[in-house]
Amino acid sequence: MNTPSQPSRPPGNVRDVRMTGFSERAVVSEVLDWLRHQAEPLGTESVPIGELSGRVLSHPIDAPIDVPSFDRSAMDGYAVQAAATHGASLYNPLGFSIVGESLPGAGFSGSIEASTAIRIMTGAPVPDQATCVVPAEHANEADGRVEITRPVPEGRHIGRRGEDVSIGQRLLETGRQLRPQDVALIGSLGLDRADVYRQTRVRLLITGDELVAPGEVRRDGQIFESNSLMLAALVERDGGLLETAPPVEFVADQRPAISEMLTRPDADIILVSGGSSVGSEDHAPTLVAELGELTFHGVAMRPSSPSGIGRVGSALVFLLPGNPVSCLCAYDVFAGLAIRKQGGRGVDWPYRPIDGVLSERISSDIGRLDYCRVAIDDNSPPNISPLAISGASILSSTTRADGFVMVPAELEGYASGSQIQVWRYDHCDRGPGDP
Amino acid sequence: MNTPSQPSRPPGNVRDVRMTGFSERAVVSEVLDWLRHQAEPLGTESVPIGELSGRVLSHPIDAPIDVPSFDRSAMDGYAVQAAATHGASLYNPLGFSIVGESLPGAGFSGSIEASTAIRIMTGAPVPDQATCVVPAEHANEADGRVEITRPVPEGRHIGRRGEDVSIGQRLLETGRQLRPQDVALIGSLGLDRADVYRQTRVRLLITGDELVAPGEVRRDGQIFESNSLMLAALVERDGGLLETAPPVEFVADQRPAISEMLTRPDADIILVSGGSSVGSEDHAPTLVAELGELTFHGVAMRPSSPSGIGRVGSALVFLLPGNPVSCLCAYDVFAGLAIRKQGGRGVDWPYRPIDGVLSERISSDIGRLDYCRVAIDDNSPPNISPLAISGASILSSTTRADGFVMVPAELEGYASGSQIQVWRYDHCDRGPGDP
Repeated sequence: MNTPSQPSRPPGNVRDVRMTGFSERAVVSEVLDWLRHQAEPLGTESVPIGELSGRVLSHPIDAPIDVPSFDRSAMDGYAVQAAATHGASLYNPLGFSIVGESLPGAGFSGSIEASTAIRIMTGAPVPDQATCVVPAEHANEADGRVEITRPVPEGRHIGRRGEDVSIGQRLLETGRQLRPQDVALIGSLGLDRADVYRQTRVRLLITGDELVAPGEVRRDGQIFESNSLMLAALVERDGGLLETAPPVEFVADQRPAISEMLTRPDADIILVSGGSSVGSEDHAPTLVAELGELTFHGVAMRPSSPSGIGRVGSALVFLLPGNPVSCLCAYDVFAGLAIRKQGGRGVDWPYRPIDGVLSERISSDIGRLDYCRVAIDDNSPPNISPLAISGASILSSTTRADGFVMVPAELEGYASGSQIQVWRYDHCDRGPGDP
Repeated sequence: MNTPSQPSRPPGNVRDVRMTGFSERAVVSEVLDWLRHQAEPLGTESVPIGELSGRVLSHPIDAPIDVPSFDRSAMDGYAVQAAATHGASLYNPLGFSIVGESLPGAGFSGSIEASTAIRIMTGAPVPDQATCVVPAEHANEADGRVEITRPVPEGRHIGRRGEDVSIGQRLLETGRQLRPQDVALIGSLGLDRADVYRQTRVRLLITGDELVAPGEVRRDGQIFESNSLMLAALVERDGGLLETAPPVEFVADQRPAISEMLTRPDADIILVSGGSSVGSEDHAPTLVAELGELTFHGVAMRPSSPSGIGRVGSALVFLLPGNPVSCLCAYDVFAGLAIRKQGGRGVDWPYRPIDGVLSERISSDIGRLDYCRVAIDDNSPPNISPLAISGASILSSTTRADGFVMVPAELEGYASGSQIQVWRYDHCDRGPGDP
């Protein structure tokens, strides 16, 4: 007999790992393969042009019009017939009667001849009969006439209709993360909206009875909660949309409260901070398994080994360890990838890789990915120095560090003097100085 | 006789360049030197912790407390006296009576002895008498007792008070642009605000009688305005605060309207798009000179030569050409630097420099800085190819390009095959794939 309220997997089949430890840990590459399949772009939405910068196109942009849509002057000066300027020089200035003016948005409706000119501004329509524009620098105007002191070839300083964009042209492809100039290009076509991937809706589920918000009064044994602040900033960096901006309310380490947050609709991704491991108060892993699927629990990496990944309903759930370094690392390796991919951004890391020389040995265990915080100096190539104090609970190691090295599972580490790749924490990269 | 309404410089002394051309153009390095002196950090403000990510500290952060503020467990397991675990093995498990539990936020108030243990969770306070934590993986609990199967040394799996941060420690320096983990660190100290440089307040002054907003009906000779969209996104990228987000209202090419926008208070920087040159409708340069100081008008660079920079009251004013490529280039070379520096961000460019090999000659004039849009391929080193169609009015050249090359004023260009530096447009840099 089927009852509709039956959970997708009977609780009896869920292995309770609390206070028994992880029997095995998933290999990181296996988890990433699974994630890449699970996290697909979510859908699209039409967004007003003023909010498009940084968003990702879900459909290409093809030009509905020519830009410019008329021949226009590229200079401030005088529109004339080019042939009539032949022979002009400082010693032989050629004179033209000024018969009118073409201003931006207000063209000249009359006609010109070989002996006449109109004053014309940058961006103003060029009348059909004119074949060039003489820049103001090479002309002297007085008493309704202008003298031209240089010959100007046909077509010079005229921007032709469609020279920037011609109607029907494919301008921007699906998947483009829009730069400031891309938004301007879309606007120049007259479009006031565009279709982009919708942003991943992210719920923060912060658990821990010991937590107190910064600024509040702290009792013995309590700690100031900070993972929500870090996660909120990371989600924003990766283009996700937080359900609630910090300060978020903490959730008690109790099954009903966590269950409610896991099953409430309208999140694409749920980030659970704390209670992810095998402690007796770690309810989230069991609940994810009961309410949906706990695909991975325990990952072969350091820190962050007590991470979990699964699904409840349509939401991907990431169980992030409460230790702040583990939380950062597990977010960056797993959750960030999913948020970016669901939002159409692809899977590339938002960190800059640079090459350097290791100043000191890094040791690691085979079979485990290691996330090692390092200092980077200004030499060329830079020296990379692992930080001495760098446990999973030492948040300050991630603020003292300039970046991190990932030691792959198949290596025992790197010898001093190795050439290695390091990822810089300052993701928005700068050039030295200015031009 | 002094009258208070007298302008800072009599209009009679202002050279009117309209329809006469620029007699000389300022060298870019001279303009940048002036700007670096003029643009100083504006002031500071206290900002709630949830809004700190990406902001720049105006004061250092020193730790007001130890973090952690008590000895805490780094594992889920059992707190015991380390000496009592000596000799434990799978063949010789050692038993302890469980006399209590320490949970996060709810420590154990009793005492333990050599023969007793408490259950302890990650993050929970370690009682004074306990000297190590045995991970749950190396213990078996049953019937109020736990058997330990490995010896554990003194201090193992205990995070000592102050091991992350010790009271009084300097953690973050003035000028730090806050990363997600920095914000978390500040929060972990219990601080719910920090002092940062206030953001540069930027006014957009979009002039041009030919302009119509995207989505509106366009008449003959009109064009869709798009510089405001580009500038808004650039200002946001550089940490500025727009007075009005797009869509912004356009300002008529008329002296009173432009004058009002130049003198209205509460802008640190005014970006004027269009009407910056020497056309008869270009009122902004004259007005800046009359109402304040037009320090530079005409700059030795291509595009963007008809740019102007000056001051009205306390606001820096940038006259940006209406041509979209010129507008982007003049913003990036001059205005962006000022916005970043006023906001405490320093002067570095928000573009990534990479080295490549030029596939085709770039020619340039001596005495003029050239901004040349290029395509960059995926070779190593990358081939850099200048775009063929790249006039100042060709906005699509900046969307087809992957980046740009700056040809310094002292060079005639670069020969094909030159090793050159190119700046990538995708400022937020990514690594290939994931770890």
